Amino acid sequence: MNDFTYYNPTKIEFGRGKENNIGRYIKESGITKVLLAYGTGSIKKSGLYERVVASLHEHGVAFVELDGIVSNPLLSRVYDGVKLAKEEGVQAILGVGGGSVIDSAKAIAAGALYGGDVWDFYINKAQLQEALPVFAVMTLSAAASEMNGNSVITNDKTLQKYSIGSVLVNPRVSVINPELMATVSNEYLAYSAVDIIAHTIEVYFTASVHPEFNSRIVESIIKTVMQTTERLLKNPEDYDARAEFAWVSLQALNGLTPAGTAGGSFPNHLIEHSLSALYNVAHGAGLAIVIPAWMQWHKEQNIKQYEYFAREIFGAKSADEGIKLLAEWFKKIGAPTSLADAKIPKEDVEKIAQNASETAKVWGMDGVYTKEVITEILLKA
Amino acid sequence: MNDFTYYNPTKIEFGRGKENNIGRYIKESGITKVLLAYGTGSIKKSGLYERVVASLHEHGVAFVELDGIVSNPLLSRVYDGVKLAKEEGVQAILGVGGGSVIDSAKAIAAGALYGGDVWDFYINKAQLQEALPVFAVMTLSAAASEMNGNSVITNDKTLQKYSIGSVLVNPRVSVINPELMATVSNEYLAYSAVDIIAHTIEVYFTASVHPEFNSRIVESIIKTVMQTTERLLKNPEDYDARAEFAWVSLQALNGLTPAGTAGGSFPNHLIEHSLSALYNVAHGAGLAIVIPAWMQWHKEQNIKQYEYFAREIFGAKSADEGIKLLAEWFKKIGAPTSLADAKIPKEDVEKIAQNASETAKVWGMDGVYTKEVITEILLKA
Repeated sequence: MNDFTYYNPTKIEFGRGKENNIGRYIKESGITKVLLAYGTGSIKKSGLYERVVASLHEHGVAFVELDGIVSNPLLSRVYDGVKLAKEEGVQAILGVGGGSVIDSAKAIAAGALYGGDVWDFYINKAQLQEALPVFAVMTLSAAASEMNGNSVITNDKTLQKYSIGSVLVNPRVSVINPELMATVSNEYLAYSAVDIIAHTIEVYFTASVHPEFNSRIVESIIKTVMQTTERLLKNPEDYDARAEFAWVSLQALNGLTPAGTAGGSFPNHLIEHSLSALYNVAHGAGLAIVIPAWMQWHKEQNIKQYEYFAREIFGAKSADEGIKLLAEWFKKIGAPTSLADAKIPKEDVEKIAQNASETAKVWGMDGVYTKEVITEILLKA
Repeated sequence: MNDFTYYNPTKIEFGRGKENNIGRYIKESGITKVLLAYGTGSIKKSGLYERVVASLHEHGVAFVELDGIVSNPLLSRVYDGVKLAKEEGVQAILGVGGGSVIDSAKAIAAGALYGGDVWDFYINKAQLQEALPVFAVMTLSAAASEMNGNSVITNDKTLQKYSIGSVLVNPRVSVINPELMATVSNEYLAYSAVDIIAHTIEVYFTASVHPEFNSRIVESIIKTVMQTTERLLKNPEDYDARAEFAWVSLQALNGLTPAGTAGGSFPNHLIEHSLSALYNVAHGAGLAIVIPAWMQWHKEQNIKQYEYFAREIFGAKSADEGIKLLAEWFKKIGAPTSLADAKIPKEDVEKIAQNASETAKVWGMDGVYTKEVITEILLKA
């Protein structure tokens, strides 16, 4: 077991109606003015916007607004938010939405106290030293952004999709009301399921040190995601399934599963980021395309863990069978499992590999994930 | 799934040699004077005391000392600590030892900022509003005190063993170096294993709402504890086993396993506290005596979960077989599984039941756990 630091100070407020307390949670931190960030209007249609605003009013928390945050969130909108946060002197950023909104809220929180360009943090040109507090009300579970310090932003000028990870932007309080997630489409539910599974298997397969407890936790998460996804595809009103899905999505990427491991990396996310940056495919859809291909390419490097995976998750006998059954499950829930499924032409493989190999340099993974290797993996997809 | 709040802001510094940084961790919180609390001298023999003191000196953290904390820690020594903390104006409490030391450190942290008697918090006469920060360097894994807000103290005048639970006394930073635990005797290792298992199965069996993910986490913890205990009994130098044991001991009682459950309680701890208060048996030994008896008494109230437990942990077919195999495992690792094993005479059952029924009132469990019911359970032990 490797040495590690585990520190996750996010308070999770989980359950029905908890969004009605968001003003109180913010006020308890001594904050009286926030930037309220959200997406493209669904929170207004659902009535969530009104409830959040009512709670802010009730507790005397003033706010300014930044709307229009899209999935695969854009740096240009983050710049707008940073400018607004500075001009208005807000004390915190409140994101109401899915992972894209929270990732943007974190970026704005980081930029608001920085004199330079917030993108500096994403390209490792500067180290995050301080940030405004972040609060979150979630409408979608997948990214676990509500319980970690990660923020993934796409630079809409350069088409680079890069990330930061710092406990300074861990949300101080995240509200997770599974009822708010009941309107998520089956398509996005499937993509979310893939994303959650991806968060756990990256380190599970790539780490050179992976304690048995961590393997068990990963398997617990994957089994729960698979079961609850199937229940929700049948019955979107199944509150308990929705709630377990939301809760395990956090466990997949809050620091628990990699604690004590060594040598793990995120190659599937690396390659996928190029798909979503170049084609704006949903992150989970891109992962479903990359994962089975990558597993085929990678399996021999850690065959025992692939056999273990096959046995524990599917009761299957071989690594190949485990990979096949996972791909079939992705297909069954409606996720694409090939570039063709996502209408990405084979001729584009070189362009994608070029983009991903640049990310590999920033992530320090270019030793293994050269343009050639990425091409080889993509050709399997 | 039930509504819940999950909040665990303790930072875990896990790994070899991390105790040498304790001065830095404390200094980073802006603290320059602490009360250093420890037990009956083993940390001096092992050299740990010197390393901790050297780190405090190195980072300019002054300290006063409170030694002599015993297992099943006593209120009288807590009073000494509170007095010393107030007189010396320390800014934090640093506990170096096992759960008893950390529980005492928390009690002192709570009492240091309170005008009244710190015991008020334990008998629900007052509500904890503020406390000094607590830091911990662990030498034994079991209680998970290093990652929760619980403190269990025995009033040596009244022989009441009561507890508090508040995030205000969660350690700010806990150092867990598995190497420091390599000198734990096989006997105490076994008791610790029982204690960890007890922390998970209380809610697992008693909750009326228990999501599947929580069951899986509990089973992951129990399997890991059983495997690593057996490895350590064979080879106390097995660092990886020691490390996994230490890490899962925290997961058993840091708020993760009960999140989203409803209706759970801690009846085995309730009854055991009377055994350790009256006879000063080790907490884990007392639990090994109570658990199989309680399970026999309780099983019909949640038979499906007992069958699930039997199947998942032991591959066994019936609830009874699961209970029997658990008791046999306790015996195999050297824990007592009956009152007779611990040389507690059968005639004392009434006295124990009387003591436990008083605790039941404080814990709000006297509706079910009357003196008669506790007697019935104890007679099975």
